[in-house]
Amino acid sequence: MRDAGNWFLYNCWYAAAWTSEIESDKPFARTFLEKPIVIFRTQGGDHVALDDRCCHRAAPLSMGRIEGDCLRCMYHGMKYNSEGLCVEIPGQATISANHRVHSYPLVDRGGMLWIWMGEPDKADPADIPHFEPLDDPSWCGLPSRCYLHYDANWMLIVDNLADFSHLAFVHTNTLGGSEDYATESAQHVDKLANGFEFERWHRESRQPPYLQKITPWPEDTIVDRRNFVRMYMPGIFLMDTQFGAVGWDSTEHVGELLEFRNCQYMTPETRSTTHFFWEYLRNFRMGEDDVGETLREAMFTGFFEDKVIIEAQQKILEQADDFQPRGLASDTALAHFRRMWFERIEQERETYPVAPDIIKNPVI
Amino acid sequence: MRDAGNWFLYNCWYAAAWTSEIESDKPFARTFLEKPIVIFRTQGGDHVALDDRCCHRAAPLSMGRIEGDCLRCMYHGMKYNSEGLCVEIPGQATISANHRVHSYPLVDRGGMLWIWMGEPDKADPADIPHFEPLDDPSWCGLPSRCYLHYDANWMLIVDNLADFSHLAFVHTNTLGGSEDYATESAQHVDKLANGFEFERWHRESRQPPYLQKITPWPEDTIVDRRNFVRMYMPGIFLMDTQFGAVGWDSTEHVGELLEFRNCQYMTPETRSTTHFFWEYLRNFRMGEDDVGETLREAMFTGFFEDKVIIEAQQKILEQADDFQPRGLASDTALAHFRRMWFERIEQERETYPVAPDIIKNPVI
Amino acid sequence: MRDAGNWFLYNCWYAAAWTSEIESDKPFARTFLEKPIVIFRTQGGDHVALDDRCCHRAAPLSMGRIEGDCLRCMYHGMKYNSEGLCVEIPGQATISANHRVHSYPLVDRGGMLWIWMGEPDKADPADIPHFEPLDDPSWCGLPSRCYLHYDANWMLIVDNLADFSHLAFVHTNTLGGSEDYATESAQHVDKLANGFEFERWHRESRQPPYLQKITPWPEDTIVDRRNFVRMYMPGIFLMDTQFGAVGWDSTEHVGELLEFRNCQYMTPETRSTTHFFWEYLRNFRMGEDDVGETLREAMFTGFFEDKVIIEAQQKILEQADDFQPRGLASDTALAHFRRMWFERIEQERETYPVAPDIIKNPVI
Repeated sequence: MRDAGNWFLYNCWYAAAWTSEIESDKPFARTFLEKPIVIFRTQGGDHVALDDRCCHRAAPLSMGRIEGDCLRCMYHGMKYNSEGLCVEIPGQATISANHRVHSYPLVDRGGMLWIWMGEPDKADPADIPHFEPLDDPSWCGLPSRCYLHYDANWMLIVDNLADFSHLAFVHTNTLGGSEDYATESAQHVDKLANGFEFERWHRESRQPPYLQKITPWPEDTIVDRRNFVRMYMPGIFLMDTQFGAVGWDSTEHVGELLEFRNCQYMTPETRSTTHFFWEYLRNFRMGEDDVGETLREAMFTGFFEDKVIIEAQQKILEQADDFQPRGLASDTALAHFRRMWFERIEQERETYPVAPDIIKNPVI
Repeated sequence: MRDAGNWFLYNCWYAAAWTSEIESDKPFARTFLEKPIVIFRTQGGDHVALDDRCCHRAAPLSMGRIEGDCLRCMYHGMKYNSEGLCVEIPGQATISANHRVHSYPLVDRGGMLWIWMGEPDKADPADIPHFEPLDDPSWCGLPSRCYLHYDANWMLIVDNLADFSHLAFVHTNTLGGSEDYATESAQHVDKLANGFEFERWHRESRQPPYLQKITPWPEDTIVDRRNFVRMYMPGIFLMDTQFGAVGWDSTEHVGELLEFRNCQYMTPETRSTTHFFWEYLRNFRMGEDDVGETLREAMFTGFFEDKVIIEAQQKILEQADDFQPRGLASDTALAHFRRMWFERIEQERETYPVAPDIIKNPVI
Repeated sequence: MRDAGNWFLYNCWYAAAWTSEIESDKPFARTFLEKPIVIFRTQGGDHVALDDRCCHRAAPLSMGRIEGDCLRCMYHGMKYNSEGLCVEIPGQATISANHRVHSYPLVDRGGMLWIWMGEPDKADPADIPHFEPLDDPSWCGLPSRCYLHYDANWMLIVDNLADFSHLAFVHTNTLGGSEDYATESAQHVDKLANGFEFERWHRESRQPPYLQKITPWPEDTIVDRRNFVRMYMPGIFLMDTQFGAVGWDSTEHVGELLEFRNCQYMTPETRSTTHFFWEYLRNFRMGEDDVGETLREAMFTGFFEDKVIIEAQQKILEQADDFQPRGLASDTALAHFRRMWFERIEQERETYPVAPDIIKNPVI
């Protein structure tokens, strides 16, 4: 199978960390696109991302100490400012222009820190795929923002999210509700230059198990369920979910809708591991903490079901790199996404060739 | 040292699993010759072996669900029959001829499932090296059939079994009995086109420790011990063991013989790991459960002694691929076996070239 | 960063083991320069180092049995003398000249066993960098000689020891005492053909934390501290440490000095792991066991601080082999050492080419 993760896209914004993951006094180490990065919050409250290796002898700066807006390496004491420039070398008067590390554009949008791993002058914060409900008070989030580490290439998670028929089999008792979901619900895909969109209806069915646990309605209420999915490069998944009375979309009196707004971000750590971030917001029972807890637990249970099968898939693919996948009709979205993605990679490599040490053993 | 396991022989029957290892409702995952395979029992009671990866996106079928004589992938619901043909794709009307996985010949003989990893049309169940005592009621087996996983190339285990002088040093206090075994017992090897045979006598010695624990005779009885060993490709070891009064083979009145029938099967999982199966049957104290337990424990103790030194040998060889072994007189059997084996590999490759993804980094 | 450890120097003495690590009845396995070696003490009391693999089938001799001055392989019973010659093969009358393993020169100096991994005829015990205080009764050592295993290339430890400004940041609360150490203490380096020497003074400062724990003086005594460091190839670090009254070196009445003699030996196990040996001797409170315990614990605490940052550095370097280090003024010693070392490697390779199996993937 063509290994989508062996070549990374650099000139785009990646989800790096929830601000809630960053402690005030402690640098935070995380690897993106196989580059070790240190993130820290300055005493002024800004967030900074630098190469996680001192320019002197490569000691990790994430073992360093925050001093004002600077970060000091705790091996020989070199101190870097937020632009990555060395501003102090203990016992040495002169500092050369080479005494620096790379500083990466890092922007906070609604609690998510977005990082730009490519050419800095192309980084435009206006391009950040911000998800508005994250900082919109008319939506209520989970008790905390969520993170999972995957032992799998990020594109396998994109694949997973591109075809909702897996809900029928992977999530029968959690997010799906019934194996009929695979056959009874329709999925029409709109191909975009930057990803895809699709809408999927599941008509006249019971509320899925995760909703039953928190629904304000009677448990056995029959509903029409609408999922509206947007997937953008490099790995941005946004979903509106709506539950209403049967036929609600074709009447003037829609009635009450139970709605969710969900974002999921996939960021490659390495070609075979992924950072997975998500938030799940709702428009009902908003102030109730136990509802939030129950929902978070239900979503984790569902996402672990994905994680188990996707990591197993990764292992199988690592054992057998000759695998030729056989397409299904439901592959429209994922096939389009991969095609767009490979085109964009090729375009990027023309003007931004990446050093050989970064692209190791490409298998494409 | 010439690494015998880097090239696998495909066109032969391999021991795959004891039927007792396969649960009725649960697919069973095991890798042979670096290919992940799923084995399952149909509701009709047959055993089936398929590639353990769905043809769609390589999800492992061993995480699937048995339905009648079929196996359903629990990622997107594709259903395969026992020939590996996809017979159902949820939400999709047409199924192409490419929607299939490889099905491997799998045959039950006396509780051992034999698998054929090579060209299916060459698989003849008549060639299975069935060990008759396995389903002969005049022999009594252990309380359960046995399996060990080795972190070592299978050929190192063949080497071990090809020279019984190791009993003197590795198994002094278990299967051997005395270091004199190395010098006092003779081993004449018959070279076969498909392996070798040898007979080894140990005269006028005490019963070995494992026998003393269960012998119906006085503990200090002096015996003549005869081992008759057959080793066949790819890794089939069969042994008849007989204990009798001194000189029993040269008199008309043989008297009572304590006899064992032992099979040991080595199947490569990868080039550096091995599935090891064995059974140890006897002709005395047949119905006694505690005798079976004692014998099983004694054999495991002995086989662990082998495992420890063979796995250590594997590690040394992995560190130093320049090793040139120095032959001993007692290497006749193993040297012959390797010679035959390499010849057969070369013959097989002429008509059945194996894909490069299967033969990685051959060192031969 | 130029990977100093990918090419080993062979024709030199390496610290192999403290004699106290070797049990009388048990062969001892340790790998040097990626070669597995067995060390054992003969019943005559000599120490012997052989290849840790039987010449027959590579079984590890470290799982063997000591018999007089010989070592018997416990797989098929081959017996080797201290020169590595096979002197007995059970069941076989003749032994060829090829039935042997390599024997390595091994010499005890003051409780340290020194091994020579290169050309045997060049091994001259007179070249062993013996540290005299080890067997001089006017110095008192720790309760036992110390060993640490590092998951890092040995040269990173040499780097660490070549620049004492790291004491200010890594060991502020243990071996250093204050971050001022980096700026207030001077370090003049003498470059040698075989390494370097430097003297470093820290004037008018408090006794460092590790000394405060055992000092016979009042805790807040202000002292002048002198470190005199010698570093020799391949990885021999020797240090004299002296604490005295302020100005002690410029008066005729020096007064009492608290002194330490410290040796640290770095021996490559592999290109990415290191054996680290050390002893820390003192000239005061000599017979007091609890002082020794306290000192040993304090030194381990300090050395673990190094280990943590050096192993982190190793991981960063393994992730990014494109790293180009930026020099500091304080790199004089380490830069010189690496230059000398590479020169010597190149010289050695001209007359002693090392087999390709030993030099895998050199990155230099």
